[in-house]
Amino acid sequence: MLTFGLNMTPMAQRPLILVTNDDGITAPGVRTLIRVMNEIGDVVVVAPDSPQSGMGHAITINDTLHCDRVTIDEGPQIEYSCSGTPADCVKMAINELMDRKPDICVSGINHGSNSSINVIYSGTMSAAIEAGIEGIPAIGFSLLDFRWEADFKPLETYIKNITLQALEQGMPKDVVLNVNFPKCENSSDIRGIKICRQAKAYWVEEFDKRTSPLGKDYYWLTGKFINEDGGEDTDEWALSQNYASIVPVQFDLTAHHAMAQLNTWKL
Amino acid sequence: MLTFGLNMTPMAQRPLILVTNDDGITAPGVRTLIRVMNEIGDVVVVAPDSPQSGMGHAITINDTLHCDRVTIDEGPQIEYSCSGTPADCVKMAINELMDRKPDICVSGINHGSNSSINVIYSGTMSAAIEAGIEGIPAIGFSLLDFRWEADFKPLETYIKNITLQALEQGMPKDVVLNVNFPKCENSSDIRGIKICRQAKAYWVEEFDKRTSPLGKDYYWLTGKFINEDGGEDTDEWALSQNYASIVPVQFDLTAHHAMAQLNTWKL
Repeated sequence: MLTFGLNMTPMAQRPLILVTNDDGITAPGVRTLIRVMNEIGDVVVVAPDSPQSGMGHAITINDTLHCDRVTIDEGPQIEYSCSGTPADCVKMAINELMDRKPDICVSGINHGSNSSINVIYSGTMSAAIEAGIEGIPAIGFSLLDFRWEADFKPLETYIKNITLQALEQGMPKDVVLNVNFPKCENSSDIRGIKICRQAKAYWVEEFDKRTSPLGKDYYWLTGKFINEDGGEDTDEWALSQNYASIVPVQFDLTAHHAMAQLNTWKL
Repeated sequence: MLTFGLNMTPMAQRPLILVTNDDGITAPGVRTLIRVMNEIGDVVVVAPDSPQSGMGHAITINDTLHCDRVTIDEGPQIEYSCSGTPADCVKMAINELMDRKPDICVSGINHGSNSSINVIYSGTMSAAIEAGIEGIPAIGFSLLDFRWEADFKPLETYIKNITLQALEQGMPKDVVLNVNFPKCENSSDIRGIKICRQAKAYWVEEFDKRTSPLGKDYYWLTGKFINEDGGEDTDEWALSQNYASIVPVQFDLTAHHAMAQLNTWKL
């Protein structure tokens, strides 16, 4: 029997786990995450019916939402495919589809990095943050390999261990975890796990301007990732050294340190 | 001549101001904001061609972007209508459409509140945050009145003053401002401005389940706003007392206080 930490109701039964992602319900990353979670608890999947990368914390307020019960593989999990964003999926799961609040919500495994500033644009992390806002322990998992055929196998023991620790130790209040893994061939390529701060990095956009057959200009967003943060306590540093990174993420965005300065303004 | 603070290059010329929003380029809120900014500097508008409320920090990476030079009124501003999200608009403006980095970016005036947890879902604030990430002082303005015909006139002197203060005093580093105004009939109804922290509040969703003419279930997202934060230093409190609220917002989401606890986990 698992024993649960401060944030958890003690339970004899297996934990109830909500799984979601932003690459869509058929993505290999979420299929791996479901397989690992089936070993830990009772799994309900509510995930987007199509890729939602870059959706940030979007929610659907001007359109309808659809949700279908689906069967994708032979696992014991219950699955729903949903027309909305990752944040919509979590709202639907908690407030409409599940009988009780899940004990934990896991999101991913994202095909591609959500380290440093990428957390802001990330659908994977928006799902975890939405769960966190609703009082549910939550973790987003990402692999620094955006290919559809990326190999998620080496991450499985790490993901299982981190999730069990979150259930057993209890999550810090009003915090969710942003977990990123370096690209690797074997579990042993990962040197360990570091608790990190978000690196101060950003994207420099380069719009690829093209002309349509009808002569109208249009653009593709492309960009270059710039990390000017030399700190050895950041997620970017840990990942560059082949560690997995865990950044505790908060959704109180108040910059408390800036309040004194603003109070000197003539308002 | 304006004198500029730490974050600003000293300039003899008028400041260059980027204006955007999430309700779309024809919304009365952004038209008011443009009018006020024309009094302060040279204005470039890059705003969505359709409403983008609830878009969070979404960016368009799987689709093309279109941008058209448009003329909507007789003001001196230069305007572009853009197919993307508010964050896309800021990226397009800074990296493709403007000759130099703007001295400030203002977003809004949003038709509806972006106080407390709403900052997370807000397209208005995502535009300001995107500008902040790119090193540009930025402010999001919102009015607690979601009606299209809301009266923005009473806010004008406040918005002008806050923007001038940001230009003159310089913005705290890596911080953008989330400014909300109470619903009011006259400027004098607003009792003043408070520097606040984000109230700890959340939405309880209530999905409105319906059945289509073809017998398929679908949902509308609705919800109830719950504020359990009794503090008198929050944006919700200030607004309830008819003050305008300014919350300094950061985009380093690291929960530094949670790192010690996570370092005790068996990872």
